[in-house]
Amino acid sequence: MNGAKVFTLELSVRDYECDLQGIVNNAVYLNYFEHTRHQFLKCLGIDFSVLHEEGTDPVVRRIEIDYMRSLRSGESFISSLSITKKGRLQYVFTQELKTVPDNAIAAKAKSGVVFVSQGRPIPPPTALAEAVDRWQCS
Amino acid sequence: MNGAKVFTLELSVRDYECDLQGIVNNAVYLNYFEHTRHQFLKCLGIDFSVLHEEGTDPVVRRIEIDYMRSLRSGESFISSLSITKKGRLQYVFTQELKTVPDNAIAAKAKSGVVFVSQGRPIPPPTALAEAVDRWQCS
Amino acid sequence: MNGAKVFTLELSVRDYECDLQGIVNNAVYLNYFEHTRHQFLKCLGIDFSVLHEEGTDPVVRRIEIDYMRSLRSGESFISSLSITKKGRLQYVFTQELKTVPDNAIAAKAKSGVVFVSQGRPIPPPTALAEAVDRWQCS
Amino acid sequence: MNGAKVFTLELSVRDYECDLQGIVNNAVYLNYFEHTRHQFLKCLGIDFSVLHEEGTDPVVRRIEIDYMRSLRSGESFISSLSITKKGRLQYVFTQELKTVPDNAIAAKAKSGVVFVSQGRPIPPPTALAEAVDRWQCS
Repeated sequence: MNGAKVFTLELSVRDYECDLQGIVNNAVYLNYFEHTRHQFLKCLGIDFSVLHEEGTDPVVRRIEIDYMRSLRSGESFISSLSITKKGRLQYVFTQELKTVPDNAIAAKAKSGVVFVSQGRPIPPPTALAEAVDRWQCS
Repeated sequence: MNGAKVFTLELSVRDYECDLQGIVNNAVYLNYFEHTRHQFLKCLGIDFSVLHEEGTDPVVRRIEIDYMRSLRSGESFISSLSITKKGRLQYVFTQELKTVPDNAIAAKAKSGVVFVSQGRPIPPPTALAEAVDRWQCS
Repeated sequence: MNGAKVFTLELSVRDYECDLQGIVNNAVYLNYFEHTRHQFLKCLGIDFSVLHEEGTDPVVRRIEIDYMRSLRSGESFISSLSITKKGRLQYVFTQELKTVPDNAIAAKAKSGVVFVSQGRPIPPPTALAEAVDRWQCS
Repeated sequence: MNGAKVFTLELSVRDYECDLQGIVNNAVYLNYFEHTRHQFLKCLGIDFSVLHEEGTDPVVRRIEIDYMRSLRSGESFISSLSITKKGRLQYVFTQELKTVPDNAIAAKAKSGVVFVSQGRPIPPPTALAEAVDRWQCS
């Protein structure tokens, strides 16, 4: 994430997130990634559930995840993201989970998010786009 | 999935899998993909939980998902996979979810799975590798 | 469930539903119970997500669960329910999960469901109440 | 929870925990209750996953939940518990979720937990029982 502004959040594994292998199930990482994006939006003053009530839904269009080191019961990690625009319609979040305190990369992801209203893709809402721009330049 | 042998499973959306947007949450697709892989293994005579008890854990190393059309409450879909070997250590599953009866692709994925024993990557267990080969040639 | 009419559904454990103890996590049983109630409603011609869109939300008011025998990877079970009215506003579902083929009770529950519209409790929608009555007498 | 010693934890709703009704799904409350019990054990120096590795599994035997007010996206709440012994084999946790800052009870639960080793119920491990006693008297 060289040069890009980074938002971070500290999280911990909860035991119910581990599966019978004793490691966090692969699907749960997407919960971590989504929760981090939503907390980022919240920090910009944008509320995911209010967006939905207003008729605009951010939806994941594509996600790529590299699982580097399995997270386990009791572990804490820093979830970070940076954001770039891709074309007119998509934001791409570059996301990473790094264990605390040893700073090992547990997983990396690229998450492409588009906005949908009444079943059709629309450009990001203006208030959100402006808040993202302001955040990146601050 | 031209030319490759395909395993399929019919599934339906369960309401608790939908989030506040009224669509299946992006993380749940990984549950569908994993469940399909495990049912495939089961159909080959390989039991995921027995593998774990014997000390071998298949783990997802990388997954890429394209979300094409959101799945919703009440929808049924066919989850399919084909499998190829990548290098000496990895299987790559090409996976797809197609709605029933309209046959629209809801999501596509490539899931790279490796095997881990005592914290180290190992080649796929022989019984599993042989069962995969037999299945592909049958 | 003596004397009461019973709705049943066959389900199987999915591996991601098991936690690090190798058994289905206690919270997942509520997914099973809810899914069974929703499939029951569907069988009566009532769609949970349509109810929500029409402004009426069935919500769980109280649930009691006895966990008798832990469900594990690979197990199938019959999920059953019967329904009774409690007062003017509540339905109580008596629910049970029995393993197949050995017919052991894995869990029992009583789930009290009320209906909410615009934040206030309302009597069950007439179409639903009539469908329940018809089903019980058929 | 008059007179009993209380352990508390502050948590927030994550958006993926909400279902298509826009409220936290009823099953997720059991995740909150479990996570609170495990953080309590951790605070006593007892690690749930280590217990499992040593061959002792605390399992929920019975849980009763009263859902008083639905939790929603963005809400924070205090999750609290007190603990009492029931018979020789069971701990009963009295649990509560109260919204912040308005202090409304969102849900109350009684969770009965027993200990299982090699498929059989056993008394609570001595180290755990002593830690619970010390905590209650401190």
